[in-house]
Amino acid sequence: MTRGFATAEFEARCAAAQARMAEAGLGALLLTTEDEIRYYTGFLTRFWESPTRPWFLVLPAAGAPIAVIPSIGAALMGQSWVRDIRCWRAPDLSDDGVSLLITTLREVCNGGQPVGMAHGMESHARMPLATLDAIRDAVALRDDANITRTLRLIKSEAEVAKIAAACAVADRAFARVPEIAREGRPLSEVFRAFQMLCLEEGADYVPYLAGAAGQDGYGCVISPATDAPLQEGDILMLDTGLVVDGYFCDFDRNFAIGAASQTAQDAHALLIKATEAGFEAARPGATGAEVFAAMDHICSGGAGGSDAGRLGHGLGMQLTEWPSLIPADQTVLAPGMVLTLEPGVQVTPDKMMVHEENIVITVDGARYLSTPAGPILPVLP
Amino acid sequence: MTRGFATAEFEARCAAAQARMAEAGLGALLLTTEDEIRYYTGFLTRFWESPTRPWFLVLPAAGAPIAVIPSIGAALMGQSWVRDIRCWRAPDLSDDGVSLLITTLREVCNGGQPVGMAHGMESHARMPLATLDAIRDAVALRDDANITRTLRLIKSEAEVAKIAAACAVADRAFARVPEIAREGRPLSEVFRAFQMLCLEEGADYVPYLAGAAGQDGYGCVISPATDAPLQEGDILMLDTGLVVDGYFCDFDRNFAIGAASQTAQDAHALLIKATEAGFEAARPGATGAEVFAAMDHICSGGAGGSDAGRLGHGLGMQLTEWPSLIPADQTVLAPGMVLTLEPGVQVTPDKMMVHEENIVITVDGARYLSTPAGPILPVLP
Repeated sequence: MTRGFATAEFEARCAAAQARMAEAGLGALLLTTEDEIRYYTGFLTRFWESPTRPWFLVLPAAGAPIAVIPSIGAALMGQSWVRDIRCWRAPDLSDDGVSLLITTLREVCNGGQPVGMAHGMESHARMPLATLDAIRDAVALRDDANITRTLRLIKSEAEVAKIAAACAVADRAFARVPEIAREGRPLSEVFRAFQMLCLEEGADYVPYLAGAAGQDGYGCVISPATDAPLQEGDILMLDTGLVVDGYFCDFDRNFAIGAASQTAQDAHALLIKATEAGFEAARPGATGAEVFAAMDHICSGGAGGSDAGRLGHGLGMQLTEWPSLIPADQTVLAPGMVLTLEPGVQVTPDKMMVHEENIVITVDGARYLSTPAGPILPVLP
Repeated sequence: MTRGFATAEFEARCAAAQARMAEAGLGALLLTTEDEIRYYTGFLTRFWESPTRPWFLVLPAAGAPIAVIPSIGAALMGQSWVRDIRCWRAPDLSDDGVSLLITTLREVCNGGQPVGMAHGMESHARMPLATLDAIRDAVALRDDANITRTLRLIKSEAEVAKIAAACAVADRAFARVPEIAREGRPLSEVFRAFQMLCLEEGADYVPYLAGAAGQDGYGCVISPATDAPLQEGDILMLDTGLVVDGYFCDFDRNFAIGAASQTAQDAHALLIKATEAGFEAARPGATGAEVFAAMDHICSGGAGGSDAGRLGHGLGMQLTEWPSLIPADQTVLAPGMVLTLEPGVQVTPDKMMVHEENIVITVDGARYLSTPAGPILPVLP
């Protein structure tokens, strides 16, 4: 897998957005978040962890994007295909990029055309509200007609290769869990050791690791690890979102510590059956709702959902992307979409188990990017 | 170090905010970001990596906060001191928490008092713009008078202990860099290995690692690692923000590979001298601008700044927090503030070197939280 993308791929992304901008009557797109800016430029850095500085990208109606960014990013953006890079020395207490951005937007939309910005679900404006309000006062800011979100639904072959590479790293790390998890070891240590395995197997970094351990299942799948030691009969679940060249995998595995109860074994087998049903349903032309229903029928008897709210989602530059596999989702699956299948079962009133795989939609149906787990719950000695 | 905080600490944070809310005439605060919500509740999870769901916290004029959150977070929030937890099953395509939040805000501000929300630098509204606009239509949304940002400037002893623990982990990891960095090893492998050292030494996770390597310095401090092998004479810089119990450290170290040029040695010694000057200047009553000037005088002859835009910043639940050490910063330092000192020198027209330490302000002056580096640039065999 080659790092980065050919310039032609960024040009194609911009051209596709610009065709939709013309339809929507937008003179520019304004992008402010890590994923949006990287999608059109390839600008990849972990520096977004710092909330100090706003970053802006302006995609005009034609041509390459214009970066309006803090000067600390000039050198790195200069390595991208973007040539028009306008910088200010941030942080600036009196004008933190606002006037530079407004000047740029007015220049690009010099007939007063509206500027599109994401307004819908899963989006946010990564800038202070005071800055947002100043922009709204200066230019006509409109909904972006979900242009970027829609384009990102379909991954290119190069993008799929990166997600597949991330999945392969996680596959290898999960295969080595027997080295790190055993009765008596605190869950917090298992979390640390698992992240080390991910790195050793080739992850660039590990932005996400969740998990849990408990008898016959767990009550929560988003809690941080406690220092409680693993006990015989515990079901250990590890769910990782590791990154290779800016792209995520997102899948989990369950393990029984020492011994597995019949209840847990049955729940695991049911989860795999539900996943396989989702896999079969995930064909071009099917809707997200249909994939949801195929899994939900098996894992909850068609109850229609749980507190988790969905049974899978998109995956790519972010740990979770559009769409969500829920009863209301009418997204029509198409080749190039990358999804997670993530059924859950309620084992007891306060215990659940979950399972997750990653797939890509092809013309012939779904293809696994993660190596799918079998129905038998692995028992660690 | 005990994980989490005593409930009394959260009660004190809320009471302090509420006193300022009364002064500002606010009926509630609306919090939407990971750090803001965690500050008042202790809600700690890596699940924020998923952009799908908005999360809301409402701090009324008196009493405990009210969580308005996706049901997937109910169990974890239930372990916090918050008792009023209102959930919806997210994602919901027709009403993703909006009406539940508006109902809550109207209930809390039943005399029509304004709701405060961060509008200033370093903040953003973590919700779709469509949701923000719906809230603005329904309640009087105002600037929060920087209440949360101001309170968070002063860390409690328990918070300082967590940052110190994170610094100690990074100290131990940096001491082991000779194990992982040598001529011929690709920088990307060094990055992976360093993150493994951080985890092995006790980091819960490593949200941030930047760095660079080059002859006599480096051109950029925010780039991802390339696969280029380290060469003799390279200056390797590693800058980590690792997390222990939800709190960051943020400091770096420089190493010469095989041999150090006199230029690089001199630059390193100057950086340490500048850091020490910043340390001496960082006393209660001094301003951020004065600490900046003390360092800038040494590292750039008083040029007044560089493309990095600042010579240090606040540190805590986030990798970087308010304030920024810049010429315009009038923050008056006070005991409990945790800062980074981060001078940089321009070694050649396109090469720089940077250095960073972490300090806490005490009544007697600054105290190092990181173990300060000496002037001699370490040379790795």
